[in-house]
Amino acid sequence: MAKEKEFVKDIADIHENFPQWYTDVVLKTQLVDYGPVKGTMVIRPYGYGIWENIQKELDKRFKETGHENAYFPMFIPYSYLVKEAEHVEGFAPEVALVTHVGDNELPEKLVVRPTSETIICDMYSKWVQSYRDLPVLINQWANVVRWEKTTRPFLRTSEFLWQEGHTLHRTEEEAREETLKMLGVYEEFAKNILAIPVFTGRKSDKEKFAGARETYSMEAMMQDGKSLQAGTTHFFGTNFSEAFNIKYLDSDGVQKSPYQTSWGVSTRLIGALIMTHGDQRGLCLPPYVAPIQAVIIPIAMHKPGVVEKAEEVKSALAKAGIRVKLDASNQTPGWKFNEYEMKGVPVRIELGPRDIENGVVTYSRRDKVGEKFTMPIEDLVTELPKLFADINENMYNKALAFNNSHVKTVSTKEEIKEAVDTGNFALGMWCGDRACEDLLKEEMQVTTRNMPFDQTPVGDKCCVCGKCANKKIYFGRAY
Amino acid sequence: MAKEKEFVKDIADIHENFPQWYTDVVLKTQLVDYGPVKGTMVIRPYGYGIWENIQKELDKRFKETGHENAYFPMFIPYSYLVKEAEHVEGFAPEVALVTHVGDNELPEKLVVRPTSETIICDMYSKWVQSYRDLPVLINQWANVVRWEKTTRPFLRTSEFLWQEGHTLHRTEEEAREETLKMLGVYEEFAKNILAIPVFTGRKSDKEKFAGARETYSMEAMMQDGKSLQAGTTHFFGTNFSEAFNIKYLDSDGVQKSPYQTSWGVSTRLIGALIMTHGDQRGLCLPPYVAPIQAVIIPIAMHKPGVVEKAEEVKSALAKAGIRVKLDASNQTPGWKFNEYEMKGVPVRIELGPRDIENGVVTYSRRDKVGEKFTMPIEDLVTELPKLFADINENMYNKALAFNNSHVKTVSTKEEIKEAVDTGNFALGMWCGDRACEDLLKEEMQVTTRNMPFDQTPVGDKCCVCGKCANKKIYFGRAY
Repeated sequence: MAKEKEFVKDIADIHENFPQWYTDVVLKTQLVDYGPVKGTMVIRPYGYGIWENIQKELDKRFKETGHENAYFPMFIPYSYLVKEAEHVEGFAPEVALVTHVGDNELPEKLVVRPTSETIICDMYSKWVQSYRDLPVLINQWANVVRWEKTTRPFLRTSEFLWQEGHTLHRTEEEAREETLKMLGVYEEFAKNILAIPVFTGRKSDKEKFAGARETYSMEAMMQDGKSLQAGTTHFFGTNFSEAFNIKYLDSDGVQKSPYQTSWGVSTRLIGALIMTHGDQRGLCLPPYVAPIQAVIIPIAMHKPGVVEKAEEVKSALAKAGIRVKLDASNQTPGWKFNEYEMKGVPVRIELGPRDIENGVVTYSRRDKVGEKFTMPIEDLVTELPKLFADINENMYNKALAFNNSHVKTVSTKEEIKEAVDTGNFALGMWCGDRACEDLLKEEMQVTTRNMPFDQTPVGDKCCVCGKCANKKIYFGRAY
Repeated sequence: MAKEKEFVKDIADIHENFPQWYTDVVLKTQLVDYGPVKGTMVIRPYGYGIWENIQKELDKRFKETGHENAYFPMFIPYSYLVKEAEHVEGFAPEVALVTHVGDNELPEKLVVRPTSETIICDMYSKWVQSYRDLPVLINQWANVVRWEKTTRPFLRTSEFLWQEGHTLHRTEEEAREETLKMLGVYEEFAKNILAIPVFTGRKSDKEKFAGARETYSMEAMMQDGKSLQAGTTHFFGTNFSEAFNIKYLDSDGVQKSPYQTSWGVSTRLIGALIMTHGDQRGLCLPPYVAPIQAVIIPIAMHKPGVVEKAEEVKSALAKAGIRVKLDASNQTPGWKFNEYEMKGVPVRIELGPRDIENGVVTYSRRDKVGEKFTMPIEDLVTELPKLFADINENMYNKALAFNNSHVKTVSTKEEIKEAVDTGNFALGMWCGDRACEDLLKEEMQVTTRNMPFDQTPVGDKCCVCGKCANKKIYFGRAY
């Protein structure tokens, strides 16, 4: 431990000051930097590399489920925002407004999109005429702007990157199915690509998206026991399609309003994976999104043939589609071990004269720091992909065990407070009244997270007001 | 021709009204639609699919040449824009300004990026300290905003999508090399992926980027003989790095300003490929960016086994990585032929009972309308990629022949006018004076396009003023 402390002296203690640990890690590993305008972030290449891998994996899943990408303008006439009453109420205070071009004032102020329901509905109202035009299954990758008072890199920034799916359906049933299907896509992605086990369920009316009839979320539990809402899907019914006059002629000759959904995840996911998997040494990145999946560190580099062999191994791995880096710089191996541990590289491969002589490499796993393994050099290409799968599974299981041991079943307000104060989610019954949510928020900064699909009761009284209750819900503090 | 006319009656005549032909084609093929805010466009799935393929191919090339992606905030403090004198002069009149968030006025107005030199330089000034930090090779994929008076989908829109590379180098030589290297990447991409032969060269001072020391461009010739600036690379010298105080400690212990470049292409490229390859039937898309590379049209669909066989062929092609669509809808084959010709799908595969019996398919190429070919069904997977290469080459050669026959060597102002009025580029000598450029612009709406690298003189007097001239340059009208 002495050695570890020495290396990581610039990173705050993860147990004593989790928020500072987070800030130290994201800055020191060069994932991100602060932009000049308050609340904005620069996503540096190492951070953007994670986002590119997230995009690639999600985009594949969206296309496999029949969606296409498009791009809608970022500027929305202010009058559009007002068309759906709940929507404007939710977003108006935090929208950035373009009022001028050069020295000239615009005839109507423009909203920089906080989300794109309104402008997309406007276009859909032109594109959809007949039942044959349905379903519409479109996704957009874009930047959005929501002005926030308190900001933190990835978690909450004025501008962030995301995807937003916007779909139209002929029947309510099909739209509801889409809402849950995409929640399932997010959950599977979180598990198999980010190694994050999530809590899925329905949001309360207070916590739902402004303008939605129902919102579903996946909540991820951070290592301080707080919740991070990592993705949402919304069922709109016909709220927006009526407000924006989207109509189609059905096969029975009747004009109807289609049912609508939207769903999104953002660069917040990067914050989620840092706070799920990181440790005192820094990042621990899941292999399928790590910008560097394996780093090769030559030992005794001055010995003839070492760097050459390392280059050869690197080329073979790169050719096999593995994201590999060879660090043949002049730093000491010790410095390099520390550096790539901090950067969370899943696999470190050491290659020295003795290894080469024996035809093996020594390797270690970021998820099992301190253990060393060996394998024949020629097995690397076939074994590394299996190793990545094993690392992802191990990281997932570790996080799952953490989740499972940090949910406390509660039956009173005091127990909710006790649970969240000690770094847990509280699972209990709720009557469904907003007044109870408002009280929790005011008294203990706790919100309802979501209602799991398994609604097997854990009591019959509301934890807050004591009245009859039939909703099982997670309570927690949230990012 | 009668039949052709019948099918294409909603598309204006390409020879009589090229601008209207363009508008008809982009709207009817659903590449794009107009956004609600003046000058904005919605890129619909079929158009965005082209952009995704452009991105994939370019991004691969950027990474192969050592660049990494990052993301910088879209909002830039107004004070940044002012730091480089030429830069603010060039961009200030057309920038969109955010002045309010909700009801609150911001302390400083924010520029919605028209390009990101200023904010990126600000970050680089923090990141770069030592010669060991050089070179910096970063690219960004992003949306940018430039308010334009006259707009047309893809060609000139208030908001557009692009990539912008921003690099820092230790030596002037290395930065100059990067500027030309990336121009070469663009040119190779234009040729091998877009099938567009371009004119590369250096821009005049009047036409260069605001703040650059030198700008290079690739100009594409449209079928009306006008030029479309399709990509630019800029050598900044130390203009920006001095304005933004980017300094590094060199190995000799001296603080120095690094040399800088930037380079970009945008969604304009989609406009370029439409106007290079399109014809009276509509789009003709180069195979490597076509969202649908091959469409399968079953003939006599009611006959047993036809649709099943078509599905089987489709699966085999999709599995081989070919972007294939099977249209088994109820429309007639004739309607489908017309539809996919208009949409520019490179290869059409017909599959009927007799084809199946003979183990062949009938296919046709969008670049050779009217001809029909056959091949054994089992050869499709191996032959289609070769066919795509041949189509790309054929389209490129056709466009190259057009280019070559539409350059007129000129020696007077009148000859310049005659050449461009009849749909050509004019190639002649220029003294280098801006006054001559201003005069051409005023008298005949002609601009200098660029000075080719081959400067073998075609005279020794300036076409405009008649004075001694040693610069060979293309003159033309431009989009």
